[in-house]
Amino acid sequence: MPKNVMQDDAEKIMVIAEREALRIGKGLSIAVVDSGGFIVSIRRFDGARPITPMIAISKAYTSAVMQRPSGMLKPWSNSDPAFFGQVSTMGHFPIVATGGGMTLKRDGEFVGGIGVSGGTPQEDQLLAETVVAELGYDTDFAEWAGAKARADDQD
Amino acid sequence: MPKNVMQDDAEKIMVIAEREALRIGKGLSIAVVDSGGFIVSIRRFDGARPITPMIAISKAYTSAVMQRPSGMLKPWSNSDPAFFGQVSTMGHFPIVATGGGMTLKRDGEFVGGIGVSGGTPQEDQLLAETVVAELGYDTDFAEWAGAKARADDQD
Amino acid sequence: MPKNVMQDDAEKIMVIAEREALRIGKGLSIAVVDSGGFIVSIRRFDGARPITPMIAISKAYTSAVMQRPSGMLKPWSNSDPAFFGQVSTMGHFPIVATGGGMTLKRDGEFVGGIGVSGGTPQEDQLLAETVVAELGYDTDFAEWAGAKARADDQD
Amino acid sequence: MPKNVMQDDAEKIMVIAEREALRIGKGLSIAVVDSGGFIVSIRRFDGARPITPMIAISKAYTSAVMQRPSGMLKPWSNSDPAFFGQVSTMGHFPIVATGGGMTLKRDGEFVGGIGVSGGTPQEDQLLAETVVAELGYDTDFAEWAGAKARADDQD
Repeated sequence: MPKNVMQDDAEKIMVIAEREALRIGKGLSIAVVDSGGFIVSIRRFDGARPITPMIAISKAYTSAVMQRPSGMLKPWSNSDPAFFGQVSTMGHFPIVATGGGMTLKRDGEFVGGIGVSGGTPQEDQLLAETVVAELGYDTDFAEWAGAKARADDQD
Repeated sequence: MPKNVMQDDAEKIMVIAEREALRIGKGLSIAVVDSGGFIVSIRRFDGARPITPMIAISKAYTSAVMQRPSGMLKPWSNSDPAFFGQVSTMGHFPIVATGGGMTLKRDGEFVGGIGVSGGTPQEDQLLAETVVAELGYDTDFAEWAGAKARADDQD
Repeated sequence: MPKNVMQDDAEKIMVIAEREALRIGKGLSIAVVDSGGFIVSIRRFDGARPITPMIAISKAYTSAVMQRPSGMLKPWSNSDPAFFGQVSTMGHFPIVATGGGMTLKRDGEFVGGIGVSGGTPQEDQLLAETVVAELGYDTDFAEWAGAKARADDQD
Repeated sequence: MPKNVMQDDAEKIMVIAEREALRIGKGLSIAVVDSGGFIVSIRRFDGARPITPMIAISKAYTSAVMQRPSGMLKPWSNSDPAFFGQVSTMGHFPIVATGGGMTLKRDGEFVGGIGVSGGTPQEDQLLAETVVAELGYDTDFAEWAGAKARADDQD
């Protein structure tokens, strides 16, 4: 059982990503990183804008090293944007609080992250979720720790 | 009488930190820095996310070199976010206006700072306060100078 | 006739790169960028060290935006290291004077760059040249302008 | 079998490090990182200069993500200092070609790195090697790929 995504895993991800990109007819970029956030595979499909691979890397990196999907950081970013803005620069790539990133977790172990960029926020997120669902990665992640506390504050 | 925290002080802090981390059942990271904001001790307890030591350092650093707990900078950050954003990059580590950092002050002398990351904002802050209280560090700090001025403005 | 490498071109490059990586038995990373130096495709083959994709990007980027293979910048780097050191930070990625990068040029038009990292300098360079030769990209590039001038100086 | 060093592993490392630091009578700093180069534990023993924890982190980071001890990068740094200088900035922390860092590898798997700073180069290196030897980590690492090639060049 590999402890990080390998090329073989990345290729399976890319096949689904390309199929979905063609289906929705958008130029998309996909990034796959390992559990430490290091690049394993990136593809900018035809028509995707030049910066989209960088955006995809940031979503994949975030989902890997924060150990939850990048979109789950939104409550944190919203509730404390100044502090989150600083945290966002504390890693090797930007830590972003936006949809389109999914953590790759298998048998309870963190093995990497993927990031999608180039579609609408909903399309990016849906594509990332499709990859995770079809390939059977785990889908349970702990919410941002502050979310519950803040909900309680408002009671 | 040493004017900076030493390893012996840091170990006492870590014992309490680990006990509290286990008690609340969260993966936490703790940083201890000296009065100049330089690292003395860092521990990422099992289960803490990879970036949390960097966040803990920023809180400890801020509390040491600003000579008040990091959370006391919130009024400043809120009232002048553009300027605070610039100040936040003027040190060796990010200067952050968020809870979870406490200044280490003993007999009126600034001797260091601690930072906690990985729990809810309330948990991080409470753990830092518990350390300071149990070990008998001073707890009186001058408010940010602008706080009073601004309150006066509104009179 | 497209003026930039597309996914289809990148895939042909990756097939050769993977074949050669397996043949020499090294963990290698390959990057393909377009004529503006933007990522088109990156693959870190199994066993390649985590930083090698970043090194591969720098070689591909350099070869694309300097419009000559990265190794051809060595005379410049050697003859004026202070200035070259400054130039090396003026792009989006580091501009490097080392082997393993090849410019992708077709019918006289600059269409991108590739970078190889993870083998010996000779292996990286040979693999990049093999890709270019097998796929029929142009191989004529203008020497760095300073090379001739300096040779003249010594006459 | 854990895939990354945990606190328990780090504590065992720190016990040896502190014993050796006391034995040679120098103020030393020790850093332990996981396989992705993220901080697990840092200690600046009494008397160590303020910047030594940062130096220790760079050695530990390098040894983890380059998957060989930091000192094994010296031939690369010596043979191509301009390029190595650029590579040194491509990670989250500086990549350094100096003694005092050891890769943590167990049963053939990369699980982290340690870095020592504050003694002579020989003392730092010896301490790191002592830790690795006493705790039974693997000690076989592939040389820098260019080393053999360059030796051949000189034949």
